[in-house]
Amino acid sequence: MASTDGTPMINRQWLLARRPRGRLQLADFAYRAGPYEPPPLGEGEILLRNRLFRFSPAMRGWMKTTAQNVAPMAVGEPVLGNTTAEVIASRAPAYPVGAIVSTLASWQDYQVIDPAAAAIPPRIKPVDVTLHDFEGVFGTNSLTAYFGLLRIGEPRPGDTVLVSGAAGSTGSVAAQIARICGCRVIGLAGGPEKCAWLRDVCGLDAAIDYKNEDVGERLAALCPDGIQVFFDNVGGRLLDIAIDHMARFGRIVLCGQIASYDDGDALAPGPRNMMRVVYWRLRLQGFIVFDFIDAVPEALADLRRWHADGRLVHRSELVVGFKRLPESFLRIFDGSSRGTLLLEAD
Amino acid sequence: MASTDGTPMINRQWLLARRPRGRLQLADFAYRAGPYEPPPLGEGEILLRNRLFRFSPAMRGWMKTTAQNVAPMAVGEPVLGNTTAEVIASRAPAYPVGAIVSTLASWQDYQVIDPAAAAIPPRIKPVDVTLHDFEGVFGTNSLTAYFGLLRIGEPRPGDTVLVSGAAGSTGSVAAQIARICGCRVIGLAGGPEKCAWLRDVCGLDAAIDYKNEDVGERLAALCPDGIQVFFDNVGGRLLDIAIDHMARFGRIVLCGQIASYDDGDALAPGPRNMMRVVYWRLRLQGFIVFDFIDAVPEALADLRRWHADGRLVHRSELVVGFKRLPESFLRIFDGSSRGTLLLEAD
Repeated sequence: MASTDGTPMINRQWLLARRPRGRLQLADFAYRAGPYEPPPLGEGEILLRNRLFRFSPAMRGWMKTTAQNVAPMAVGEPVLGNTTAEVIASRAPAYPVGAIVSTLASWQDYQVIDPAAAAIPPRIKPVDVTLHDFEGVFGTNSLTAYFGLLRIGEPRPGDTVLVSGAAGSTGSVAAQIARICGCRVIGLAGGPEKCAWLRDVCGLDAAIDYKNEDVGERLAALCPDGIQVFFDNVGGRLLDIAIDHMARFGRIVLCGQIASYDDGDALAPGPRNMMRVVYWRLRLQGFIVFDFIDAVPEALADLRRWHADGRLVHRSELVVGFKRLPESFLRIFDGSSRGTLLLEAD
Repeated sequence: MASTDGTPMINRQWLLARRPRGRLQLADFAYRAGPYEPPPLGEGEILLRNRLFRFSPAMRGWMKTTAQNVAPMAVGEPVLGNTTAEVIASRAPAYPVGAIVSTLASWQDYQVIDPAAAAIPPRIKPVDVTLHDFEGVFGTNSLTAYFGLLRIGEPRPGDTVLVSGAAGSTGSVAAQIARICGCRVIGLAGGPEKCAWLRDVCGLDAAIDYKNEDVGERLAALCPDGIQVFFDNVGGRLLDIAIDHMARFGRIVLCGQIASYDDGDALAPGPRNMMRVVYWRLRLQGFIVFDFIDAVPEALADLRRWHADGRLVHRSELVVGFKRLPESFLRIFDGSSRGTLLLEAD
């Protein structure tokens, strides 16, 4: 097989060059490119061309030997990541040539996958959604926010909802869905620009700049009657503080633990005030979006309606150029990215 | 008012002499006795004579300035504790003179309470239950085990259930209810005698002596497919280890945190592996028995049936003598007590 104009296919790859320690560095990645001859497809397999790459903090955890949920990334292999890809050859009738799918793939131009063996089946892009929105406002992060908040957090109108990582791809959607549900919403974010965006554009009732404000003091002032739902992307210190301000029977949605991701194999300190968890009858619950796969169509219908009528805003940033994958990924850990960070292959 | 033979009433009391630091000591308590003239009862109030005192680790937490759920005990006041008491004067029709009630009271012979203002209404002893069983096998600890396991843990037949503090008053009942529900049950207890009792008398599938065995290694060997329900009375290190061995969608019932009670105002380290909580979709949930007050009759009916047909055993130890309250209370922290520790006033 060759490209349509007869020239040989070239597969570019970014490999995990070594097991990262602590904060990620460019030297943790290695670039390689070479001619590509796709292997003959087995029954049910499809050949993908990755078009759009999405970065998520969870990928940092997949690089650790202690990775959970997925097998740890192997040194010398392409970096595991979420992509939107075009099906360019297929022996799976559900995924015909030309279909655009969102899937767990890796940092390379071409790869063969077996959709039936995937932990989560690749999701096909509807024709009336742009590539960008498909991985952005209607992407996995938004679905994660939707199911985590509604199914695990169980917010009720009038509840006070706190969201950490609130200016991020998942957090900003969770916060806005809480607002749409009639909750009072407070966001935790780093820096005045993100906080202003949460208040002025996303319509949150308040935002706390955890880098420059005393989170405990502000929560005490803002939530004298406690927090009913905490949607937590961060863990560590912020989780500990939030527990002290939860209301009785409060629900804590454990979506992620960014505080632990970029920290070698070490784990951030766990929440110490477990006595309050007992006596305040709090519930801490982890989840992953895959658990709600059957309900994705109804979730997307809600997200599309809210987005269309202007109640759900989303911001994302698009970088162009396959070569820029590692440098772009590093940005989600230094707080400089805004919303969903996407990279389009050139 | 005087006692029936006309002699003046004497009220004996054990007071909290000072704010305890670290491990409790006898010097934390002070004895006082003197003539007692009951105040005129207000509408709805009752006068109690405390007959039987029950000790629980939670009382240690109530002595801290950081007490949760109850107001911290005041220095110079009688020690707060659970008792079974006789109503000896009443202006509350639901609690007539002669009724025997289990209630939150304090370490003294006499006291006036307002049942309607109590966080949990005093519970009246059925005539066909002994005083001892009323505070023991059918007492608050057993109800705590019942509701915590069934309502928060939601065990299913075939589940593997782990219980910490398994030889204790609450833990032993939780473990046996799990067994009655058709679960495979593993207990954590300190020392070979307690472990043998759990296996041989309570019918547990296995018991781990956390003082002398490597808990992580034994859990790995006993539960290769993970633990579905962990009923945790202890917290701290054991909770951290248990999280590493939970099955996906496992439920952790946070009943108590004995690891933190006897430790000044410090808190035991919290669980660090929150990433596993997220990815394994674990649920950690606190509760207190008061939340299920409406369902107490059905719980007692189950407990009485299981006890009558020999499926639920209970052990308790009875000490006699009001003067021995502090020394007996200290025993529940050194591991020397067995099951529910009760003290009968002389």
